[in-house]
Amino acid sequence: MLQQRQQVLLNTTRKLLRKNAHIRLQHIVEHVHPADVAALMMFLSEDQQDIVFGLLGENARKAEVLSYLEDAITERLLDDFSVNDIAVILQEMDDDDAADLLANVDEEKAKQILRLMGREEREEIEDLLSYEDDTAGGIMTTDYIELKPEMTASEALVAVQREGEEPEMVFYLYVVDDDERLIGVVSLREVVQAPGETLIESLMTRDIKKVRTDTDQEEVASIIARYDLLAVPVVDAENVLSGIITVDDVIDVIRAEATEDILKQAGVSEELLDDYSVRRNVLSRLPWLLATWVGGIIVVSLIGQYEEALKKVLPLAAFIPIVLGMAGNLGSQSATIIVRGIALGKVDVNHLFATVAKEGMTGLVLGCFYGVLLGAVAFAQYSDIPRLGLVVGLALSSGMFIAALVGTLVPMLLHRIKVDPAIATGPFVTTFVDITGVVVYFHISMMLL
Amino acid sequence: MLQQRQQVLLNTTRKLLRKNAHIRLQHIVEHVHPADVAALMMFLSEDQQDIVFGLLGENARKAEVLSYLEDAITERLLDDFSVNDIAVILQEMDDDDAADLLANVDEEKAKQILRLMGREEREEIEDLLSYEDDTAGGIMTTDYIELKPEMTASEALVAVQREGEEPEMVFYLYVVDDDERLIGVVSLREVVQAPGETLIESLMTRDIKKVRTDTDQEEVASIIARYDLLAVPVVDAENVLSGIITVDDVIDVIRAEATEDILKQAGVSEELLDDYSVRRNVLSRLPWLLATWVGGIIVVSLIGQYEEALKKVLPLAAFIPIVLGMAGNLGSQSATIIVRGIALGKVDVNHLFATVAKEGMTGLVLGCFYGVLLGAVAFAQYSDIPRLGLVVGLALSSGMFIAALVGTLVPMLLHRIKVDPAIATGPFVTTFVDITGVVVYFHISMMLL
Repeated sequence: MLQQRQQVLLNTTRKLLRKNAHIRLQHIVEHVHPADVAALMMFLSEDQQDIVFGLLGENARKAEVLSYLEDAITERLLDDFSVNDIAVILQEMDDDDAADLLANVDEEKAKQILRLMGREEREEIEDLLSYEDDTAGGIMTTDYIELKPEMTASEALVAVQREGEEPEMVFYLYVVDDDERLIGVVSLREVVQAPGETLIESLMTRDIKKVRTDTDQEEVASIIARYDLLAVPVVDAENVLSGIITVDDVIDVIRAEATEDILKQAGVSEELLDDYSVRRNVLSRLPWLLATWVGGIIVVSLIGQYEEALKKVLPLAAFIPIVLGMAGNLGSQSATIIVRGIALGKVDVNHLFATVAKEGMTGLVLGCFYGVLLGAVAFAQYSDIPRLGLVVGLALSSGMFIAALVGTLVPMLLHRIKVDPAIATGPFVTTFVDITGVVVYFHISMMLL
Repeated sequence: MLQQRQQVLLNTTRKLLRKNAHIRLQHIVEHVHPADVAALMMFLSEDQQDIVFGLLGENARKAEVLSYLEDAITERLLDDFSVNDIAVILQEMDDDDAADLLANVDEEKAKQILRLMGREEREEIEDLLSYEDDTAGGIMTTDYIELKPEMTASEALVAVQREGEEPEMVFYLYVVDDDERLIGVVSLREVVQAPGETLIESLMTRDIKKVRTDTDQEEVASIIARYDLLAVPVVDAENVLSGIITVDDVIDVIRAEATEDILKQAGVSEELLDDYSVRRNVLSRLPWLLATWVGGIIVVSLIGQYEEALKKVLPLAAFIPIVLGMAGNLGSQSATIIVRGIALGKVDVNHLFATVAKEGMTGLVLGCFYGVLLGAVAFAQYSDIPRLGLVVGLALSSGMFIAALVGTLVPMLLHRIKVDPAIATGPFVTTFVDITGVVVYFHISMMLL
C-alpha cells in the first residue's frame, strides 16, 4: 500500500517533470506528507531534486522535508543555498533536526549560520553538535517540558498550555530539582487524571529508566525497546537533565543497525544504500572481496602443493568445491545465529563453552549426515576408486564440524574483546574455513588413498 | 550497560537458585522490571523457570512478566496451570497481550478459559483472536479512548479522567461518528492546550494515517516509521475504528523482521533464536544446506565431465575454488543490497533495467580488477603454461559479472511476482553462480588451452 502509493507519486512526478508542468507538480508536493516528498527525492536525478525542492514554497515546508531527507541529498541541496537562506529554514526546525542538518553543512558555513541565530537557539544547537553522532547526546532533542516537584497538577497543566506547539513529545513530563537534576517523571495522562491540587511530587515516578549523554545509540534503542517506552530522558554525569530521545528516532536507529548488520554479512558498507553510484559501489565492495581473494590465493597454492596427490586420483579435484562450499555455508550459519543472538541478548555470552558445544554438536550431526550422503554419491560415481567415498565423506564431515566451531567461536571472542561481532559474518570466517578445509581434505586423502 | 546489568541479574539468580535461597530471590524478582525478569527466564533451565515464575507472587506481576515473555516459554509454563489460574492472570492483562497469550494455549483449554471471563472482555479477546497473527488486527489493542466530534475540550478531558489507568496509550484520542466510523484524531496535548469550550470537531485532524485490520504488520511498521507516529488507528472495511497499534509493538515487529531477513540470508529459520536445542538447530538448517549440497553435486559431475581437460592441465583444478568463491561472494553482495534496498524502499523496483545495469557495471569493474590480479598470479606461478593466466583471469571476470547480474535480477523478479525477495540471499544464488561458474571456466579453458 505504502509502496504502491509511493510508486504512483513517483510516476506522476516524473511525468509532470517531463512535461514541465510545474504548477500541477507544486500542487501535489504541497499536499502530500513531507516524509513522502523526502522518500520521492531519493529516486529523482539531481536536477529533478532541485526543481521539486524549489516548488515546496514556504520555509516551514522545506524544513519539514529536510528533516526527513537522507543526509547525502540534504548536503547536496544545501550546497547551493546562501547562509541566510539556510538560517531562515533552520529556525523552522526542531533543534535536534537543526543540529543534524548543520552537521551536513561545511564547517565554515555552519559557523556563519550559527552567528545569524538567536543566542538561546544557537547555544542549544552548539550543545547538541558537541556530542558524538551515535550517542544519546547525538540523537536527543532539547524540546521537552520540565516541572518542579512542588507544582500542583493544575499548575503543571498551565505549564503545558504555555509551551505551545513546540515540544515534539509531551506525553512524559520531567521533574527536576533546583539544580536541574532529574528526580522524577510523570505522564500527561496522570496529570490530567489527578485532582487539581495534587502535588507533582506525589504523582511522579522516581524509578526512572534514563540514559547518559554518552550512552551508545544502540544501547538507547535496546532500553526503549525492552521497557516499551515512548521516550527516555538523557542526563549528564551530574544527573542534570540534558534532553530526551523519542521512540521515533529510535526506530530509525534500529532500522539502521539492522541494515548495517545485514550488509556487513555480505561485506558491504551501509552508506551504499543512500548514495548508489557505480563508483561508490565498487570502492565499498573492493576491500571486502580482497579478503576472499587473498584466502582464495592461499587455497590455490595449497592445492598446488598437493598436485602429486591430485595427479594420482584426479576425481579428488571434482569434490573440492562441494566440501568447501558446504563447510563455508555452515560456518556462516553459525556465525549469523551467534551474531544476531548477541545483538538481541539471546546468547549467553558468558557461557562460551555451552554455546560452542551446542553449535559444534549441530555441525557434527549435519556434517555426518551430508558426509554419508556425499560418500555414497562418490562411491557410486567412482566405483573404481573404492576409498574415494570414504575420503570425501570424512573430509566433508570434519570440514563442517570445524566450520561450526569457528563460526561460533570467532563472534563470541570478538564480542568478548569488545569488537563488533558482526564482522565475523563477513568473508573472514568462510575464508578461514576454506583454508582449513583444503588442508584437512588432502591430509585425509593422503592417509587413505 | 543493559547487558552488564542483565548478566549481574543472571549470575545472582543462578547463585541463589543453587543455594535454594528462595526468599532472597523472591525479593529480587519482585523488584526488577518485569521485562528484565522475562529476559532472565530465557537463560534458565525449565526447572529454574518454574521456580522463578512461582516466586513472582501476585497475579498482576505474573501477568506483566508473561506479556514480555517469549512465546515458547509462555506455552511451556502455562501447560502446568489450571484453566482457573490462567483466567485469573488474564484478567490482569491488556487485551492484546491476553489474546497473544491465549494463542499459545491449546485450543480446548483456551475455550474453557474464555468461558470463565466476563462477556465484554471475552468478546473483545475473541475478536482479536480472529485476525491473522501478522496483520494489523493481530497486533492491535482495543484499549483506546474514543471521543465524539460534538464534545468540547473540557468534556474530552473528563472522558480521559474517567478512563482510569487502563488504556496503554492516551496520547492520541480518536474521534468517531455515531456509527463508530473514524473521522478524526486529536492529541491529548491539543485538548489540554485548547480553551475548555472548543469543540473537538474543530481541534481534530481529519487527514489521518490509518491502516486496515488486514494490513500486513510489516506495512504497519513502515507507516509508523515513515511518518514518525506514536500510534496508528486500525479500521475495518467500513472505516469503523477497531483498535490501535502503538509504536512499542511495532518496534518488536521491526526487530523480528530484521532478524528474519538476517537469518534467511544464512538459510536459518527465525524461531531458532527462541528455542535453541541441537535437534531444532539441525532440523532447521538441514533443508537449506540441501540446496548447497545439490548444487555441489551438480558441480562435481560437471567437473567430472571435464576430466580430460583437467588431466591435460592439472593446475586448472587449483583455481576452481577461488573463481567460484569470488563469484559467489559478489553475487551475495548484490542480492543483499537489492533485498535490503527493496525492504527499505530505496530500490526503484519498477526500473529493473537501470538497477541491473548499475549492479552489472559494478560486477564488471570488480571482475576485471580481480581477474587481472588473478591472471597475474597464475602467470607468475605457472609460467610453463603461459595461457593459464588468461584463462583464470577471464573466467573470474565473467563469473563475477554473471554473479552480479543474477544476484540483482533474482530478488527483483521475486519481488515482482510477490515472493519475498529475501530468499534470494540464501544459498540459491550462490549455488546457481557455482554451476554457471564451472561451465564458463571450463569452456574458456577448452577454447584457450
